[in-house]
Amino acid sequence: MKVTVAIDCMGGDHGPHVTVPAAIECLRRDPELSVVLVGRQETISAELAKLQAIPDSRCRVQHASEVVTMDEPPALALRNKKDSSMRVAVNLVKSGAADACVSAGNTGALMAISRFVLKTLPGIERPAIASVLPTLKGRTYVLDLGANVDCTAEHLLQFAIMGSVLVSTVEGKPRPTVGLLNIGHEAIKGNEVVKKAAELLRTSGLNFYGNVEGDDIYKGTTDIVVCDGFVGNVALKTSEGLAQVLATFLREEFTRNVFRRLIGLIALPVINAFKRRVDHRQYNGASFLGLRGIVVKSHGSADALAFEHAIRRAVDEVRGGTSKHTAERLGELFPQQVREGVA
Amino acid sequence: MKVTVAIDCMGGDHGPHVTVPAAIECLRRDPELSVVLVGRQETISAELAKLQAIPDSRCRVQHASEVVTMDEPPALALRNKKDSSMRVAVNLVKSGAADACVSAGNTGALMAISRFVLKTLPGIERPAIASVLPTLKGRTYVLDLGANVDCTAEHLLQFAIMGSVLVSTVEGKPRPTVGLLNIGHEAIKGNEVVKKAAELLRTSGLNFYGNVEGDDIYKGTTDIVVCDGFVGNVALKTSEGLAQVLATFLREEFTRNVFRRLIGLIALPVINAFKRRVDHRQYNGASFLGLRGIVVKSHGSADALAFEHAIRRAVDEVRGGTSKHTAERLGELFPQQVREGVA
Repeated sequence: MKVTVAIDCMGGDHGPHVTVPAAIECLRRDPELSVVLVGRQETISAELAKLQAIPDSRCRVQHASEVVTMDEPPALALRNKKDSSMRVAVNLVKSGAADACVSAGNTGALMAISRFVLKTLPGIERPAIASVLPTLKGRTYVLDLGANVDCTAEHLLQFAIMGSVLVSTVEGKPRPTVGLLNIGHEAIKGNEVVKKAAELLRTSGLNFYGNVEGDDIYKGTTDIVVCDGFVGNVALKTSEGLAQVLATFLREEFTRNVFRRLIGLIALPVINAFKRRVDHRQYNGASFLGLRGIVVKSHGSADALAFEHAIRRAVDEVRGGTSKHTAERLGELFPQQVREGVA
Repeated sequence: MKVTVAIDCMGGDHGPHVTVPAAIECLRRDPELSVVLVGRQETISAELAKLQAIPDSRCRVQHASEVVTMDEPPALALRNKKDSSMRVAVNLVKSGAADACVSAGNTGALMAISRFVLKTLPGIERPAIASVLPTLKGRTYVLDLGANVDCTAEHLLQFAIMGSVLVSTVEGKPRPTVGLLNIGHEAIKGNEVVKKAAELLRTSGLNFYGNVEGDDIYKGTTDIVVCDGFVGNVALKTSEGLAQVLATFLREEFTRNVFRRLIGLIALPVINAFKRRVDHRQYNGASFLGLRGIVVKSHGSADALAFEHAIRRAVDEVRGGTSKHTAERLGELFPQQVREGVA
């Protein structure tokens, strides 16, 4: 299936140094992929020249004169930067010139622009951010990861629906299990929002497992873990912090003296196999769900390999029909809202 | 300084098999420590006999006929089990026969009983659970870890005060830094409760650093991280889950074939040094703060070494005068409430 992805080449900590080589590598690997490289024409052309790549029908450059900075308030980026690479890339999805858009830029601005330009699906009040994490059993999708603080029970239900469709379309699991993140497995645990969300989930027709706790994310107890964006963001960033401190301690122990360094050299193939297995770059690419179009957010600090994974995630979502299937599932669950939303 | 600790010997997954040997080991290491072993007389005596230990003035056995089970609703444990080992141990703190109490039992029941028997300090509406975590720079205290869901900004301020006193008394840092857990460093981020808490903290006289994110916990950005109990509990359990999955992956890589196993043998001293460094048992022992007495909760699955650390945490709090200093600090900050509370 042919897929076109619009790439915000200017976003992220490294901009075109990372985004352009990643796009070229994806084109090389996937002959049915086309990309639109969005950003400052001369900068992108220079990067392409470095890679000895020439724009053609599969690799088009779209000039955009402005750049949204990483610390720019989302509302200002939305109002003032109509010709930013981010905005133009999202516009390409809206116009149908691209099937999806990928950016490593300012998360808040990307969400604000995506929501304004693409609009939410009928039945969805708030888009959510979903990411995939490695677990003992495979992979688990967690959402929301920070788009929404102060969620209601209804929002959590909508996240569960969007997550279920994402996993069924991208991972090919027809009835993925949904866990509700809580501070205990018992139904009496948690705050009022979570208790009410559990009731809604029980009668939702989704494959609801029940409450899960923080450690269940990495145990892989369920395919999807649903939570408020505040909690999800803290859980994700705490994980990043812990992984970093453990990696640092491991390195320190293997370099403490000459003898230890020698052991480190001998163990290097094993350590590298371990590193590859937990390499967060292969999980890069958070999906913005609930929009009338596919938007994937890469980590701002992504390198080319990580950014490639974000592009591939967008391609998988297009090929799986995530956005279309979410709309259909919402139509089954909330026929009235969806009719009103469409009308 | 002489210290007496009441030990709920029946609590936790392993009961007296773990609690009694841990207590005896602590007595051996600390000549100024005395313990009261609370629980079924015959069971405790049998454990003591196994260890060839004889009750004496430093090691007294206090019979308690009932046991609070791990899954018992806290309200029922509080109402119906007046002669549980947990209740009797907390009663010993109330009567002054012990300076602190340690239990590996049901967290909710221990909190309910502690609160009912000991009462909160004047100026404190809700006790909090604080634990210490290893970081790149040393140690960070995090609270609340699950005693309170749905916190107000005032509760978060109270947690910050309690955490500050704990760290200054136990770690000997006169003005420990306080971070407020949020989903961004900027003041505009987060939900309403967190924004208001930041305002209160800014004018509190505490050494307030500002907002911190999940990864700052393990970076050791601040000495204390304050958060709602729901968020704190998820962060802690997510960390436990991630640590387990990384340990499993590392073990799997080192045992994948005979050659890898050989490398594993060679690297064993380094791996063991790493394991010792991140061994969660040395961080066992969560402090219940804000009570008129010292209560420490051990992890339910603690082994004897982990339980020893929980006992030592209680001893450190007694010697540091945590409870007394918290009351004084609250008196300075909220003179009116404290006068009314004392009256």
